[in-house]
Amino acid sequence: MQYSKQDIDQMDRIQKIKFINSISGIKPANLIGSVSNSGQVNLAIFSSVFHLGSDPALLGFITRPTGEIPRHTLENIKENKQYTINHVNSSFTEKAHYTSAKFERGQSEFKICGLTEEYIGDFKAPFVKESGIKMGMEFKEAIDIKLNGTILVIGEIQHLIIPEKALGEDEDIDLSNINTVGISGLNTYYELKKISRYPYARVNQIPDFDAEI
Amino acid sequence: MQYSKQDIDQMDRIQKIKFINSISGIKPANLIGSVSNSGQVNLAIFSSVFHLGSDPALLGFITRPTGEIPRHTLENIKENKQYTINHVNSSFTEKAHYTSAKFERGQSEFKICGLTEEYIGDFKAPFVKESGIKMGMEFKEAIDIKLNGTILVIGEIQHLIIPEKALGEDEDIDLSNINTVGISGLNTYYELKKISRYPYARVNQIPDFDAEI
Repeated sequence: MQYSKQDIDQMDRIQKIKFINSISGIKPANLIGSVSNSGQVNLAIFSSVFHLGSDPALLGFITRPTGEIPRHTLENIKENKQYTINHVNSSFTEKAHYTSAKFERGQSEFKICGLTEEYIGDFKAPFVKESGIKMGMEFKEAIDIKLNGTILVIGEIQHLIIPEKALGEDEDIDLSNINTVGISGLNTYYELKKISRYPYARVNQIPDFDAEI
Repeated sequence: MQYSKQDIDQMDRIQKIKFINSISGIKPANLIGSVSNSGQVNLAIFSSVFHLGSDPALLGFITRPTGEIPRHTLENIKENKQYTINHVNSSFTEKAHYTSAKFERGQSEFKICGLTEEYIGDFKAPFVKESGIKMGMEFKEAIDIKLNGTILVIGEIQHLIIPEKALGEDEDIDLSNINTVGISGLNTYYELKKISRYPYARVNQIPDFDAEI
């Protein structure tokens, strides 16, 4: 099926959301934990966390502005500059999914969704005990994306927790060892199965693909 | 294993790159096709494509600035404002991986890596024939991220190609039907297997997780 920009513009709203949320490929499933200065914790699933750089160790994610609909994650991050990013694994995809409901202030997503708060040292924001890989983040910058009113939130890793069993061959992290999952669209979860690993690509070491044609 | 910011700062450079490129979770595997005004085509794998919004249909990706190391993708996009994003599937992960080598101008990644150029209508940038889902993009904005000198490139979908077999239940796209893959770190590829799909999360329809504890 082939759609032009005009076809997309005229698409049924729900169909458009389904399609356009799926076509970037697989998305990571992460829970972002935060806490307000008054001590109210928040937990919400995000599929937009991405790698921005290794040195310094920066991750970004996309959110919408705080406005009529409260965005507790962003409000909390602005208050105290701390948050956590926690991998969703296949043992709790349903619990993680329901953190996306519109909870009121005063309700704990941890409690209602059956997940466990965990604290590390004096880091204020809550980690998710059930997660494999998890990170404590310090807020660095929020960049307004004027094209559609979204916000890119960038943070630097302050604490990094990697389970021993996450390590695969050659000290690489193997996401399938810790059952980390991915998301497509808004509500479909995928298991990951490692299929191949290739060396750093050098131009003088390329297999003879051309001859295969 | 638990690492502080100081531990990460002092980590061996290669180990740091391996770890920090893996810890955001699974990343999508996409080939970005572009062409210079002089007609030189370029194809390069990116793991940083992400969904930015559905209306208008915007996708972003992260790149480094053109400088001492040529970044043909960004140069081409700046020249003529067009590029394509093409899903990598499990039948050609190795070919896709080797597009990351540092090719010279004049070399065709399509030819050397054994992939096939495809053109749609009067869209100038090349699509990848072997890909399932593919998109023709119009460049909208490049945002400099001063924290680490990277660039967020944002484009709007002009052409969207979705194979019939990509459609799963309820008109959702099922990435496992078309063997789209994910990437962890710099060089490890993962197959995707759909495991669960949940309804839109409403606060008054949350399963009784709390009782399970």
